[in-house]
This record gives sequence, C-alpha cells and structure tokens, in this order.
Amino acid sequence: MNLEKYIQSIEGLDKQSMEEALDHWDHLTHPIGSLGELETLTIRLAGIQKKKIPNIEKKAVIVMCADNGIFHEDISSSPQEFTQMLANAMVQGDTGVCSLAGYTNAEVVVVDIGMLHTGPFDKRVLDYNVRQSTENFYVQDAMSREDAIQGILNGIAVAEKKIAEGVKIFGTGELGIANTTTSAAVLHAITKFPAEECVGYGAGINDVQYQKKVKVVKEGVANRIKEEDDVISILAKVGGLDIAGLVGVFLAGAKNHVPVVMDGIISSVAAMVAVELNPLVKDFIYASHLSKELAAPKVFEYMKIRPLVSLDMRLGEGSGCPFTFMILESGIHCMENMGQIAKTNIDPYVQVNLRK
Amino acid sequence: MNLEKYIQSIEGLDKQSMEEALDHWDHLTHPIGSLGELETLTIRLAGIQKKKIPNIEKKAVIVMCADNGIFHEDISSSPQEFTQMLANAMVQGDTGVCSLAGYTNAEVVVVDIGMLHTGPFDKRVLDYNVRQSTENFYVQDAMSREDAIQGILNGIAVAEKKIAEGVKIFGTGELGIANTTTSAAVLHAITKFPAEECVGYGAGINDVQYQKKVKVVKEGVANRIKEEDDVISILAKVGGLDIAGLVGVFLAGAKNHVPVVMDGIISSVAAMVAVELNPLVKDFIYASHLSKELAAPKVFEYMKIRPLVSLDMRLGEGSGCPFTFMILESGIHCMENMGQIAKTNIDPYVQVNLRK
Repeated sequence: MNLEKYIQSIEGLDKQSMEEALDHWDHLTHPIGSLGELETLTIRLAGIQKKKIPNIEKKAVIVMCADNGIFHEDISSSPQEFTQMLANAMVQGDTGVCSLAGYTNAEVVVVDIGMLHTGPFDKRVLDYNVRQSTENFYVQDAMSREDAIQGILNGIAVAEKKIAEGVKIFGTGELGIANTTTSAAVLHAITKFPAEECVGYGAGINDVQYQKKVKVVKEGVANRIKEEDDVISILAKVGGLDIAGLVGVFLAGAKNHVPVVMDGIISSVAAMVAVELNPLVKDFIYASHLSKELAAPKVFEYMKIRPLVSLDMRLGEGSGCPFTFMILESGIHCMENMGQIAKTNIDPYVQVNLRK
Repeated sequence: MNLEKYIQSIEGLDKQSMEEALDHWDHLTHPIGSLGELETLTIRLAGIQKKKIPNIEKKAVIVMCADNGIFHEDISSSPQEFTQMLANAMVQGDTGVCSLAGYTNAEVVVVDIGMLHTGPFDKRVLDYNVRQSTENFYVQDAMSREDAIQGILNGIAVAEKKIAEGVKIFGTGELGIANTTTSAAVLHAITKFPAEECVGYGAGINDVQYQKKVKVVKEGVANRIKEEDDVISILAKVGGLDIAGLVGVFLAGAKNHVPVVMDGIISSVAAMVAVELNPLVKDFIYASHLSKELAAPKVFEYMKIRPLVSLDMRLGEGSGCPFTFMILESGIHCMENMGQIAKTNIDPYVQVNLRK
C-alpha cells in the first residue's frame, strides 16, 4: 500500500447527514441546542458515518504494545519486562482498560507492534511486530523511516481488519514502558513547546528521574531532529512503534468513516501526527479525558480540542476512551428516544434558537 | 418530623469501609492511584454506603417541579404553562433527562412540589404540592418560612420513599419556569458573589431580559434579605419550592447513607443550602457536569467541588446526573473485574505508591 496516496484519499465529513442530524435534534422536546456537546458531537458523528442517526454499537479499543530503547536512560519507574507482562494480563482481561471497555461492551484488541519478547508470549496478543523494541534515541535514531512507515501501515491493517468485522468506533490505547518519554519527544519536536512542558511523571518516577527525562527529551530532540524533518521522520527518530501503530488507526478511521477516540498523552500525540499528515483527520477524532500527565493540557491546546471528562487518570491503556463511548451513546440514545416537539404542545421552543 | 433534629442526626462517612476500599484498589493490576478519581470517588462511595465494594444498581433522578412568582417580572423565555406541560412530557418519557436516565437504567421520579395547575394534570406526577407557585420575590417574600420547611420535608419524604424501594443513588433535577432566577437570588444571597456573576441566560433570554434579571435578583435580595437571615429564610424569601424539595433530597441522602448527584445551577444551589445546614452533607454529594449557565463555575468554586464532565449542557431536568452514574458504575465495575496483582507477576507495582 502507498501510504502517501492513502493519506491523501481521506474525505471530509458528509454535510448532508450533519444537516439531517441537526434538524432531527431541533425537533426534539428541549430548548434548541440545550444539550450542548451531546448534540454537536453526535451531529459530527452523523457526518463521519454518513448517517442521520449514527450507530456505534460495535466498539473496540486498540492497544498498541511496543518497547522503547530510551528505557535504558533510566527514565522509567517500571522494569522493561512489564510491557509484555501487562500485554499478557490485558488479553486475560485483568487491566483497567479491560474493565472500563467491558463496562461499555467494547472489545479490547491487544496488538504487538514492537514489543521485546522477554518471556512467555500469550498467543491472544495479535502479532503485527515490526521490530523488537526501538533503539535508544538519546544515542541514535529510534528506528528507520521505513520501520516507522511499516508501523503506521500495520496500524492501518489492524484497524481495517476490525472495521471489516463491523467495528463502528475505535478507542486508542498503548502499553510500553518508557513511552511517555517518546511521546514527550515527539510532542516537543512537533509543537516546539519547551521540553519541561512536554515531559510528565509517567507511571511514577522520582524528581531526579524527572530531571533526567527532561534532559533526555531536550537533548535527544536537539541532536536528532533537523528543521527539514517531516512528522514521519520525527516519529522515526525519537518516537515509538506504539505511536506509529496508533497513527495508522487514526488514519484508517478517517479513511473509512469511523470515529477514533484519543486517550492520554501517547494516543493524543499519535492523533496529532495523523492530523499533521492530513488536517481532515481531525474531524474524525474525539477527545476523552484530561489525563493527569503534566503535558495533557498542552496537547489539547495545540490541537484545539477539548476533553469531555476530567478524572485525574494517568493509567494509559486507552482507559479514558470508554467514557467517550458512553457520552456518544447517550447522545444517540437521546436522538432515538426523546419526544418530538410536534407531538407535544410545546411549539414555542422552536422559536428559541440559541444554537451558535 | 423535626427538621432541625433530622439535620443534626446526619453521620459522616464510614472510615473503615473506605480503608477497605482503598486497600482493594491498591491490590488491583495498575500503578497505585493511576485511575485517579475513579478510585477516590468509589472509595468515598464505600464510606457513604458502609460497604467495601459499593452498589448503585438501583438509581433514580428526582425531578422537583414548581412555579415561581418572579416569572411575572418578564425574566424568562418561556410561558409559565411550560412547567406543567413539561412535567407531563417527562412522565411520558419525552424529555432529555428521560433518555439520559434511561440509558443508565435510572428511574425518573417527577414530583409536583409547587406547580401551578394550569392544565390537564398527568396523574403519574407525584403530588407533594406545598402551594401552587410562590409569590414574586421582587415585590414580596416568595413564601413563608413554614412553606420552605414543608418543601424540604416533602423532599425528604419523596427521597425516603424511594430509598425504601431500594434506590442506592439519587440524581437531582428540576422543572420550573423562572427557576434560574430564584437560584441566582439564593446563590447571590448566600455567597455574596455579585449578582452579575450569579445570573445566567437560562433556557434563552435576550440581553434586555438579562439586564432585567440581574436587576431583579440584585434588588430583590437587597430588599428582602437581612444580615441575620439563615439559609432557610433566604430560601423562603427569594428561593423556590423546587430548590426546597431538592434540599430535602440532599439531606435525606446524607441521613440514609445514599449518595446524591447534583446537576446544574438549581440543584447545585440546593446542594449548597443543604451543606450550609450541615457541612457533613458535602461528603454525600457528587458533582456531574459543568453547566453552560454562566454562574456554574462560581457554584463549584464556592462549594470547592469540581465537575467531572464538561459538555456545555444547559437543559436542567437533572440531565447531567446520569454521567456521574456511569462514571461511578464504571469505577465499581473496575473494583469488581480488574485482576489482582497477587495473581500476576507484577509485584513491583505495589512499590510505586503515588497516592496523595
């Protein structure tokens, strides 16, 4: 597949369906526009799915798992073996995203896009491995441009497989020790926000490690990234395969008219890369929660997107996405179940149009 | 019933159950504390229900319906008949809160606590009417202190009836043309925030009406409220029976170890009054969304509570409460379904304790 052609073939929203969805909302028993984002989010969903009343019954959170060479700079609180151990725990249904996705009847799809195979490997983890871990970007490029592109293509392949199975909305998650460092580096390189604003505490490092993490991100990006590097080069040089795989999911969603929900920093950075590749992708993205990770507000600021939920979560795994599934589903439920003004006596409501 | 005794008999949270819930969370497969508010909110719920793993399966949104004499100052966008028409539409399941509550399997309990009977009355609306509408507080006290107390007692009665039926969590909603004006007046009188910061656009007034609404609130409160007035006097003089009824729901929840979720401005002002009556009530309250109504952030600021969801909604009816039901239920679902660290190989997690 030619990635460039794929990216350029993405279409925008279907205006006709959005107008029909808007008109549908405006005839429901409530002051026009008073359900706020429940209305605007579902109207956009209509535009994504080309369907007046959208449907997201079949849901999946795709969790991209990869290891990162930058781990060796001692910027993580967890041993590297955790990536694979947690991937195994995840296919057994034991981690946070499993419970939260389960609560919303969403499937969790665990993908090996670049894990080190450090121990027994649960076969329920899907094998899309590009390479076993990236290199340490503090001393060399994390991976080749070809590997980064292959990561994106593999992400597209996973997403399109699930779309073929009928999935109507994606959540995006990740597993990978040290991936808040690679994300911070990509964020810093793309946005030019100071490294101090891009780096957070991840799963829980101490202050000495935090200072080191900032230094690694700042110097790693300064040494590797040149002004002429495009986002794929940035991804290859200081990013990770989990991010690359999620970029593929965002692109495949946009290409196939399937909405994709972003979670915390890592998936949000992937969303940002996808939008840099084609600005139309943004219309297919939904925010979920404001992560506790320090850089979270910066990502939203740069992307001009706002979070729907604020719960101080910092687990990752795509664990925030199910909240957006619930909010969108509740909005669709309103579209399907609220009364029609025409059937009540409450005509004057249609006069009070506060929609902006 | 002696209201004063009832209020003073409220107990605090059960610390033992909270410690057990905390310990339970700390043994689940995730970095300790990384699910943020999902953990703290459910731990508090354990303290409310005296139960390590709480249960909110049976849910109800209580919607207090009342008319307000201040309507006659032309500060509303809707005719007064809407209160009863919408109450009828609500028991038929046609309004926003019905769909949103329905999505979470919550019952909607529609209560006439002080409506004008302007037309055919649907018998499914529960009759707890104290009086048909209050008076115009711009020219006289809205109601007597006795009426306000009766409103609170009726709210307690409704809530305790539902608790006896097994309801484990309440949402709080309201219907009542002009009730953003009474709420603004109570908010202004209690907090002393400038009237301009307490008054919003309600379901949709124009700028001339907005200026009038500010004037009515400012002068109404200045003329009626004296320094020595307690919150019940404030409620009686410039408040409304919907607010009084909801105060009763918040008190009954706290008294009976049942959590109560606040919605927009009106129910939040009721929560504020209940907390003024006994500060222990605050521990039984959950926020839901940040309403689009202008004063919403001021209420959260004064109560030192923060909203969980931000969707620019301004419908009222208790329509924001179901989001908190979902968030709490998803947290409980995690408590019940996440794996135990002891059963995995991931011991080092218990070392990383970032809980604050």
